[in-house]
Amino acid sequence: MTSFLPIPANSDFTLSNIPFGIFRTSSLSPRICIAIGSHLLDIRTFHENSGFRSLHQLQVDSTVFSAPTLNPFAALPQLSHNLIRAYLISVLTTGGPFPDILENNAELQMKCLHKLEDVTMCLPMEIGDYTDFYAGRVHAYNVGCLFRGPENALQKNYEQLPVGYHGRASSIVISGTNVRRPRGQTGEGVFGECQRLDIELEMAALIGRGSSLGDPVSTEKAREMVFGYVLMNDWSARDVQAWEYIPLGPFTAKNFATTISPWVVLPIALEEGGYMVQGLERWSKTPVQPYLQEGGANMIGVDLEVRINGETMTKTNGKNLLWSFNQMIAHHTVTGCNMRTGDLLGSGTISGEGEGERGCLLEATSGGKNPVKIGGEERTWLKDGDEVVIMGHCGEGEKRVGWGECRGKILPAKPLQ
Amino acid sequence: MTSFLPIPANSDFTLSNIPFGIFRTSSLSPRICIAIGSHLLDIRTFHENSGFRSLHQLQVDSTVFSAPTLNPFAALPQLSHNLIRAYLISVLTTGGPFPDILENNAELQMKCLHKLEDVTMCLPMEIGDYTDFYAGRVHAYNVGCLFRGPENALQKNYEQLPVGYHGRASSIVISGTNVRRPRGQTGEGVFGECQRLDIELEMAALIGRGSSLGDPVSTEKAREMVFGYVLMNDWSARDVQAWEYIPLGPFTAKNFATTISPWVVLPIALEEGGYMVQGLERWSKTPVQPYLQEGGANMIGVDLEVRINGETMTKTNGKNLLWSFNQMIAHHTVTGCNMRTGDLLGSGTISGEGEGERGCLLEATSGGKNPVKIGGEERTWLKDGDEVVIMGHCGEGEKRVGWGECRGKILPAKPLQ
Ligand SMILES: [Ca+2]
Ligand SMILES: [Ca+2]
Ligand SMILES: [Mg+2]
Ligand SMILES: [Mg+2]
Ligand code: NI
Repeated sequence: MTSFLPIPANSDFTLSNIPFGIFRTSSLSPRICIAIGSHLLDIRTFHENSGFRSLHQLQVDSTVFSAPTLNPFAALPQLSHNLIRAYLISVLTTGGPFPDILENNAELQMKCLHKLEDVTMCLPMEIGDYTDFYAGRVHAYNVGCLFRGPENALQKNYEQLPVGYHGRASSIVISGTNVRRPRGQTGEGVFGECQRLDIELEMAALIGRGSSLGDPVSTEKAREMVFGYVLMNDWSARDVQAWEYIPLGPFTAKNFATTISPWVVLPIALEEGGYMVQGLERWSKTPVQPYLQEGGANMIGVDLEVRINGETMTKTNGKNLLWSFNQMIAHHTVTGCNMRTGDLLGSGTISGEGEGERGCLLEATSGGKNPVKIGGEERTWLKDGDEVVIMGHCGEGEKRVGWGECRGKILPAKPLQ
Repeated sequence: MTSFLPIPANSDFTLSNIPFGIFRTSSLSPRICIAIGSHLLDIRTFHENSGFRSLHQLQVDSTVFSAPTLNPFAALPQLSHNLIRAYLISVLTTGGPFPDILENNAELQMKCLHKLEDVTMCLPMEIGDYTDFYAGRVHAYNVGCLFRGPENALQKNYEQLPVGYHGRASSIVISGTNVRRPRGQTGEGVFGECQRLDIELEMAALIGRGSSLGDPVSTEKAREMVFGYVLMNDWSARDVQAWEYIPLGPFTAKNFATTISPWVVLPIALEEGGYMVQGLERWSKTPVQPYLQEGGANMIGVDLEVRINGETMTKTNGKNLLWSFNQMIAHHTVTGCNMRTGDLLGSGTISGEGEGERGCLLEATSGGKNPVKIGGEERTWLKDGDEVVIMGHCGEGEKRVGWGECRGKILPAKPLQ
């Protein structure tokens, strides 16, 4: 199965993927698109030119394709996402069943296709609420050891529920947005530029269909509520965090910026590719609560990489989580909290066991005590001008399903007024 | 100064107040209004019938008055709110400067006035992010004593910054919405109906004009960003909270419902009435950081009352806070977090020093150990069917400025599926 559009070797955007996003150009307002090879397909224009005329199984309100965010599209039933994606795959396949739609339609190709480097990607969704979890047990354990020693590294609740907290939605930014070094309080009478600026390598889920206030969602139902997944960098000011977080959790240390990738990979792409795998095994002998039980391969087996200034800092895998996104949703809603289309759930920092597998600098440097070598340079925390890129993909070649990148560069703190 | 509309004795909605809200009826879609006595004035219809024609100082885009939320109105400069409110006062005053607008215009009165009991009030704003602070020091101290004893009751950061955490925006509901008793995890292997359901008496601020990502807001600038204030009940599942909150703060214990009052009182009403007062004095000898400094009367001197099933549980005052809303905003944005129109900031539980002045049952009953008498009945936590009403007002008679009520009733937990 090949496309009549060029798909470079190592492209994340194969016919097996078809991730959704929102783009704009100097002349086009923000609109829905999918990525294929080094191009994107403008789905709004495609729809306006009857591109969906051979998709007979489905009638979709056209406002879904003309919206400036993915929210109306994401709010459709998961089955509709899957049908539309399958149709787009068939339309993009060489010698597919509908050659008149795009393959032999040079005019529509001219109208709908853009090179990825010619467009600006936007936040894919309007995000109502953002919640960050802490499901990376290797990370939680390592950080716990730093603060409390190995005996008490994991809190007693850690293996009984997906620990998480509410984050800040207003400061979620799209890949490529520069991040200002924050100033803040780091101790009694101490205020200044953050000296311990860090990243957090995370995967995140965006909610498609929401749920009602008062109605807990089962893990099974939760699967159908996930619209798709993005890469996430949860920038963190560790010195601010240590001073402020007791007793109500991280606050200004984490609300100055959270970067997500522009491309949303649908669950179906990961399932079809066989990329869902088992996560970590629980250590606790106390059985998991019925509302959190979920069998099978529920983690994204995504190969993740973090680069700083082009040099690899970390390579790890998305399976290093104790709780799946479905379990996070089930827990999030257990007391009755409602989910809305566009809500974002972060996994928590993903780290592997090995030396070069740490998802943040706090862990990689043991709290700043042991600098790590990145590209021949010793480093502890982020410096002004550092550019951090997170990448992630499953599989290779024609079967590759990836996210592209989640990028951000540190700007020096603004001069005080 | 009296109105040609009847204003009952003890009305919260005098000519000195003029709070804004959103109402609907079976035939009218949600729209902007103000309260006056036992009536409301439909501002959308008022505007459509040229009610603002004598307000010459101001040109306002008419979408501001036709929106289904207060967001576009709140996003106007504070000066515009003040001009519009002053104009409405003059229009509602007997023998005012513009008698033709409403006083002598029976037809427009018919069109625009509704009895409060004939309408349904809606959430006043679309709330992007909700943040809950912990600025009630009496409360923080009492709760700290319960958990850690008087020596360590207040954490070291408590007097250095307004401690707060991000809350859940999706589950904010309007006064009158019933609240389901939640189920949740309360210990290792323990799951069931919440046994320690509680209220939290709070004031909250709604943001008018927002701020930009990366730009900290001074306390002075913050004053101009507050659109207005509401009453808030931050329902809390104490048994869930105790088990889940370490180390990242309260999560499912507080995201099942947060109730706010429908009427938004503008800062100008409180300033004109002389109702802004000094808050608590800091105990710490470490000077407050420059970015948090704020002089003068910055607390709302509001008399607050909580009733359960009509019986008084609590009487206290809004001055029992260590940090003002302006200071909360300055702290919230210090690392660069942006604020958006409609963001909600809760004060934290407000308690006074005395016995009958506790803003939550956790405090009033010393963690459930000492039942309190409310209307002749001994009680510890909320029972199914309990109806909680929070009320608040400043001043009396013609000068009274109040919020009406913030009401919610506990429904039994839903049967398990
Ligand atoms: Ca995180
Ligand atoms: Ca609270
Ligand atoms: Mg963040
Ligand atoms: Mg709440
Ligand atoms: Ni009074």
